[in-house]
Amino acid sequence: MTVKETAAWLAARDNFLLLTHVRPDGDTIGSAAALCRALRAMGKRACLLRNDGITATYAPYADGLWAEEGYVPETVVSVDIAALSLFIDAAQPYRDRVDLAIDHHSSQEFFAAETCLVSECAACGEIVYAIIRELTPITPEIALPLYVAVSTDCGGFQYANTTADTHRIAAELMALVDVTAVNKALFRTKSFVRLKMESRMVEEMTLHFDNRVVVMSIPLSLRREMQATEADIEELSSLAAMVEGTDCGVTLRELREGVVKISIRTTPAMDAGAICAQLGGGGHRGAAGATVEGTMESAKAAVLQAVAAYMEA
Amino acid sequence: MTVKETAAWLAARDNFLLLTHVRPDGDTIGSAAALCRALRAMGKRACLLRNDGITATYAPYADGLWAEEGYVPETVVSVDIAALSLFIDAAQPYRDRVDLAIDHHSSQEFFAAETCLVSECAACGEIVYAIIRELTPITPEIALPLYVAVSTDCGGFQYANTTADTHRIAAELMALVDVTAVNKALFRTKSFVRLKMESRMVEEMTLHFDNRVVVMSIPLSLRREMQATEADIEELSSLAAMVEGTDCGVTLRELREGVVKISIRTTPAMDAGAICAQLGGGGHRGAAGATVEGTMESAKAAVLQAVAAYMEA
Repeated sequence: MTVKETAAWLAARDNFLLLTHVRPDGDTIGSAAALCRALRAMGKRACLLRNDGITATYAPYADGLWAEEGYVPETVVSVDIAALSLFIDAAQPYRDRVDLAIDHHSSQEFFAAETCLVSECAACGEIVYAIIRELTPITPEIALPLYVAVSTDCGGFQYANTTADTHRIAAELMALVDVTAVNKALFRTKSFVRLKMESRMVEEMTLHFDNRVVVMSIPLSLRREMQATEADIEELSSLAAMVEGTDCGVTLRELREGVVKISIRTTPAMDAGAICAQLGGGGHRGAAGATVEGTMESAKAAVLQAVAAYMEA
Repeated sequence: MTVKETAAWLAARDNFLLLTHVRPDGDTIGSAAALCRALRAMGKRACLLRNDGITATYAPYADGLWAEEGYVPETVVSVDIAALSLFIDAAQPYRDRVDLAIDHHSSQEFFAAETCLVSECAACGEIVYAIIRELTPITPEIALPLYVAVSTDCGGFQYANTTADTHRIAAELMALVDVTAVNKALFRTKSFVRLKMESRMVEEMTLHFDNRVVVMSIPLSLRREMQATEADIEELSSLAAMVEGTDCGVTLRELREGVVKISIRTTPAMDAGAICAQLGGGGHRGAAGATVEGTMESAKAAVLQAVAAYMEA
């Protein structure tokens, strides 16, 4: 469905439950929160399915929007979810009955009855912004989570996915709400623990393929040693992408014993999505991910093999 | 003079020499380069006074624009220079004959015959953008240095000085030129040396005033040990401003034996400019600086005293 069709579709329905993805980021939470507030402003009933993975960074934006125990929705909408594998445990009962998916990932698996996909958008928040504009005036309460969604998914307007439209939307939202504190909290604040973890990751990073590829690791042992929270290690994958002279930053994060999350960030010279696809994952050209079973060592070997295969192709 | 008056003033003159400030940043170089290219596009003669302090980060944008030896200008314009104390050595002969100052610092000292000051702008580049729009079509060659100017002075759209207009200008410029590589180079690239220096600064930082103030140091000894270039330590003052729970990040950088550059970044809860004014410096509310004589220890004591006086007032 187009943005206009999606807006009309939403306007015709009620009693919404909004789903966000595992390890929720600013885009899924901000987009869902903004849509929820917009639907409520239209006099509808709407709430977010509780996502226990939410960190302290994004929890404030979902405050007051979580569904009560026993809430029975009529309309289920997923926001920024590309695949069923990214559903949280609590969302499993809705796998076969998502009425609408709103998403910007080109790897969207079309699991929902209807889909509003605009893969040119840097953030799902840009699509939600366009939808809400068709429905109801954008209040400061709607503008704030939208700004969080839009700004975080483009790395604070610094990632390659940022477009002129991203900036135009930011300008519109900034005219409605003061984002000073949000910018400071999201982009210019690091906890002591995070600063220390980054130091260790830098000390222990390894370089491969004539220094074109850098690998950083976050083993469980480091998390335990530093007593790091989820918020402390959020988006740490951007660090590997910063090393001068490299085209591919790989971050290996041990989610739990025997399961490793691989995050890859690339310059336009390489395709993160193509590399992660070989590992059963997906994403965008400049940023993608995969989750594999095994040790940190075997995950590292698997990534380097996938990179080698990509480079040969 | 207003932007329109300044544009008319520039259109009526020729043979320009553009001055940039000491330790040149993206705003002074990008603004001067864009203005220079715009004046040339209008068929005028214009160049930048060679600034030996330029780093590898910004040198590409001034390439081909430096004045030849013996160039005799008719019209001298300073760009992003708030005070005579920020003139480079080569600009000393022009101290008393600057015809126009274009600036956005509220601490502007009005040393020029004419001044175009718009202190609401996040970057001097925003003013130069508005001036150029009155004069000549913005080509990709003009848009690129303007984007550098605008984006760097607002910390890549993440500092508190960023406004809706900043985003609107970025949107206009991005429609004209691909800034992907510029964003990667300016905001998402760190040299090995820089990463290592940051680690050391984090290890050795100190906290004061109930953790509201954090002090980080870059002594000459650390620079020498790491063999750091100017580009490696550029904008390192933003690191201190990142520490969670603090309102005031102070960076002390030993420029040479006995001379220390103090950089202060604050949240809205404190006024960096007011603190630096006590130390003979100046700047904006959220970001300011001063240069003092003495050792790193005496500079640190002086800053902490200035902070104490500010907090009492």
